[in-house]
Amino acid sequence: MQHKIVLQESDIPKQWYNIVADIGKPMPPVLHPATLEPVGPDDLAPLFPMSLIEQEVSTERWIDIPEEVMEVYRLWRPSPLYRALNLEKAIGTKSKIYYKYEGVSPAGSHKPNTAIAQAYYNKKEGVKRLATETGAGQWGSALSLSSQLMGLECTVYMVKISFQQKPYRKSIINTWGAEVFPSPTDRTNAGRAILEKDPDNLGSLGIAISEAVEDAATHDDTKYSLGSVLNHVLLHQSVVGLETKKQFEMVGDYPDVVIGCVGGGSNFGGFADPFVMDKIAGKEVRAVAVEPFSCPTLTRGKYAFDYGDTAKMGPVAKMYTLGHDFIPPGIHAGGLRYHGDAPIISLLVKEGLMEAVAVHQLGCFEAAITFARSEGIIPAPETSHAIRVAIDEAKKFDEAGKEGVVAFNFSGHGHFDMAAYDAYLAGELQDYEYPDEKIKESLAELPKVKY
Amino acid sequence: MQHKIVLQESDIPKQWYNIVADIGKPMPPVLHPATLEPVGPDDLAPLFPMSLIEQEVSTERWIDIPEEVMEVYRLWRPSPLYRALNLEKAIGTKSKIYYKYEGVSPAGSHKPNTAIAQAYYNKKEGVKRLATETGAGQWGSALSLSSQLMGLECTVYMVKISFQQKPYRKSIINTWGAEVFPSPTDRTNAGRAILEKDPDNLGSLGIAISEAVEDAATHDDTKYSLGSVLNHVLLHQSVVGLETKKQFEMVGDYPDVVIGCVGGGSNFGGFADPFVMDKIAGKEVRAVAVEPFSCPTLTRGKYAFDYGDTAKMGPVAKMYTLGHDFIPPGIHAGGLRYHGDAPIISLLVKEGLMEAVAVHQLGCFEAAITFARSEGIIPAPETSHAIRVAIDEAKKFDEAGKEGVVAFNFSGHGHFDMAAYDAYLAGELQDYEYPDEKIKESLAELPKVKY
Repeated sequence: MQHKIVLQESDIPKQWYNIVADIGKPMPPVLHPATLEPVGPDDLAPLFPMSLIEQEVSTERWIDIPEEVMEVYRLWRPSPLYRALNLEKAIGTKSKIYYKYEGVSPAGSHKPNTAIAQAYYNKKEGVKRLATETGAGQWGSALSLSSQLMGLECTVYMVKISFQQKPYRKSIINTWGAEVFPSPTDRTNAGRAILEKDPDNLGSLGIAISEAVEDAATHDDTKYSLGSVLNHVLLHQSVVGLETKKQFEMVGDYPDVVIGCVGGGSNFGGFADPFVMDKIAGKEVRAVAVEPFSCPTLTRGKYAFDYGDTAKMGPVAKMYTLGHDFIPPGIHAGGLRYHGDAPIISLLVKEGLMEAVAVHQLGCFEAAITFARSEGIIPAPETSHAIRVAIDEAKKFDEAGKEGVVAFNFSGHGHFDMAAYDAYLAGELQDYEYPDEKIKESLAELPKVKY
Repeated sequence: MQHKIVLQESDIPKQWYNIVADIGKPMPPVLHPATLEPVGPDDLAPLFPMSLIEQEVSTERWIDIPEEVMEVYRLWRPSPLYRALNLEKAIGTKSKIYYKYEGVSPAGSHKPNTAIAQAYYNKKEGVKRLATETGAGQWGSALSLSSQLMGLECTVYMVKISFQQKPYRKSIINTWGAEVFPSPTDRTNAGRAILEKDPDNLGSLGIAISEAVEDAATHDDTKYSLGSVLNHVLLHQSVVGLETKKQFEMVGDYPDVVIGCVGGGSNFGGFADPFVMDKIAGKEVRAVAVEPFSCPTLTRGKYAFDYGDTAKMGPVAKMYTLGHDFIPPGIHAGGLRYHGDAPIISLLVKEGLMEAVAVHQLGCFEAAITFARSEGIIPAPETSHAIRVAIDEAKKFDEAGKEGVVAFNFSGHGHFDMAAYDAYLAGELQDYEYPDEKIKESLAELPKVKY
C-alpha cells in the first residue's frame, strides 16, 4: 500500500488562493487602534510594505506566486500527503486518515510558506530589517530562515515562557543569523510597561506583538511581520490546501472532513480554505478548527472588534476573541496561546462554513504518542490537537458504521518540544479549563466601536 | 532550476547491494575475543539472529529486501536527492554539488535503514528485546523507533557525554517506548568495572558496546543490535546509494566524487558502495571518507585485528583502528567517536578503492552554518564533516579550472545538536589533534593474532 502521495516541483501551485473572493460577504473593516476608524493603506505603511497591504485587502480569487518565492518553495515543497496506514491500524478504524506533512520545511513547520513571501516583498521594497514576535518559536525560526535567504536582518521577540521551555529555538534562530529576545523585554515601551507592573511576567503573543510592532514603527528601515491571523498570511498558506487537493485527485479520493489546529489560524486556513471553496460551491466537506480548552477563542470567545495586541498599538479587527488582556496558562502548545483568531477564520466560523472544537492537553499528548509510535514522526504539541480530533472523527465514522475520509494538516514536527513530552511521560501535565468568570472579565475590556 | 530529484515509492530498490561480492578479495575472518580463532555462526548466535549472521558472511551481490521492511521504508523512503543550488551560489563555485537527504526519516538520519531490517529479522526469529549502544543518539533513536514499529522492547546504552549534551535524545527514545541509560552504567559488569576505576568516565562507543553486548549475552530473550561497522549494516544502508544512482540517472548526471562522514562507516558505506561498484567496473569516480582529526581512525590508525569494544567481549575484526582503549575527546560529533571502522570500508581504503581525509571541528561548523544559511537545513555535526569536504572538493575543481560534480550524503539533521551550535556561535569550541604519543600507546594494546 502507498503511504506517501508525492508531487513533483512542477506541481507546486503557481497562484495562491484567496477565500475572501468566495465568502459572499465583505470582510469587516480593520480599525485604527487610536481612532477606531477604518484604516487605509497609509495607516499600515509604517508596518507593512505596500504589496502586502494590497494583498491584505485584495478580493482577487487568485494571486500569482512570484518566481523568487517559488525558487525558495522548491527547497522543500511540494510537501507529501501521507495515508496514515499505521495509525489507522493502531486505533483500529475502518476510516481512512490522511495527513499533509508540513514538517519537511527546514524550519519544521508550515510557517515558511508565508515567511518567505513576506521577506521577499519587504526586500523588494527596500526594507532592511524585519521585527516579529513568536510563540512556540516556529514562526521566529521561519522568519529568521526566510530573512537570511532573502538578505534581510531579523529581530525576534519570543514569548518568555516558550523561550524558557524551548532553549534550542534560540539556537536555531541564531544559526540562521537573526537575533532573539525573551518578551517582555526592556527594549520597548510596551515591554517595559509590563515588566514594571510584573517583573516575572511570562509573556504572551499579544505582548510580544506589541513589542515587535513598536520596534518596526520606531525604526525607518524596519517593518513588522506577522506569522498568522492576517489575510495575506492565510493567502500564502493556501499552497498547503491546494497541493493537498491535487494529491487527493492523484489517488482519486476526497475528504469528508479536514482538520487543523488553530492558534492564529494560518495553518488551518491554508489547509482548509481550498476545501471550503468547494463547500461554498456545493461540495459536501466539513472543516474543523481545533483549539485548546485553555485558550478557547472560537468556542467560548466573542465575535467582536478587538485589539490584536495587548498594548493596543496594532490594528483592531473583527474576530473571535477572549479579550486582548487574556493571558492563557503556560500550556506547552505555545503556538495556540493567542487571544484572538484570524478574521477570515472567524467570519467563516460565524457563517457556519467552518466548525470549531476545543480539546484537552492530556488527550492531545496521548494522541501524539499513538501517532509517533505508529507513523514514526513526533508531532509538535500544536499539531497533536489536530491528531486528537482526527482520531476522534475517524472513530465517530466507525460508530456510525461508515468508512469516512479524514484529513488533517500536520503543521509541524516536535523536535524542539521534547521537554513537553518529558513532562507528559513523567505525569507532570494536567488539563486546564478557563473559569467563565475570567473570560467574562477579559471580554469586558473590548473596545466600543460603531461598526 | 530543479532543487529536488524526487522518486516515487515504487522506485525504492527491491534488493540491497553487497559490495563484498565485488571487492575481488575475501574479507578477513572475524575472530573470537577469547580464543582469537575465527568465529562460526554458533559463536555469534547469542548476539544475533541467524538471518543477520547469514547476511554478515554473505558473498551474494544482491539480497532481497523483505516486504515487511519495504512497508516501513515507505514511511520516508525514497529520500530526495538535492542539487545544492543555493550552496553553490553562496560559495561561488562553478561545480555542481548534490546531496542525498537522509534526514527525512522520523529519527532524522540514515540509521533506520538498517534498524528496521534488524528489528524485523529479530522479531521473525522470536526475539523479545534488543539491546544496543548509541553515540550521538541517532542510532538509539532509530532502533527504539524500529523496535516499536516491529513490536520489540528496546534498551539503549548511551555514551554519557552525549547523554549530557543531548538531553532530548532521551526524550525521543522514551517517546518511541524504549529505555535509555547513560553509559557507563552500574547495570553491567563492563560498566561497573569502568566506574570503579573512574567514576567520572564520560563513556565511549567502545564501552557502551560492551554493556549492550553483555546485556544481550546474559539474557535469553534479548539480542544485540549494532548500528554501524558490520557487513550486514552496510548492506542495509546500500538503499541510500542505490537510490542516489537512480536519481543521478534521472537528471543525466554522475558524480566525480562521492563523500560521507565516517564514524563506524555505515552512512558512507551505504552511500558510496554502489558507486565503488562502478569504480571496480572501470568507471571514474572517487569515494572520500571524512573523519574528525580528534578521532583519526582511517588517516592515522593501523590496519590490524582489534577488539570492537573496550571490554573485549565482542568479536575481533581486521580494520583500521586506533586501539580499543582509545577514548577520543568529547567533540560534539558524538557519532564519529569510534576507535575502529567498518571492516569493509577499511579493506576498501587499504585497496585504494576509497580515500580518507581528516578535518577539524571549527571548519566543519563553519561549513554547517554556510549550508544552513543557504540551503536551509541545519546539519548534524557529523554531517558537517561531509559538507566541509564537499565544499573543499568543489573549490579544488574551481582552482583546476574544471566543473566538477560533487555529491555527499547528508546523513542527518542537527535538530538535537543545537547545544553544539550554541557553543560554536559563542566561540567556545576549539580544534583538537591527538598527540602521536597517545595513539602509539593505545595501538600497543592490539591483540596478537596469527591471521
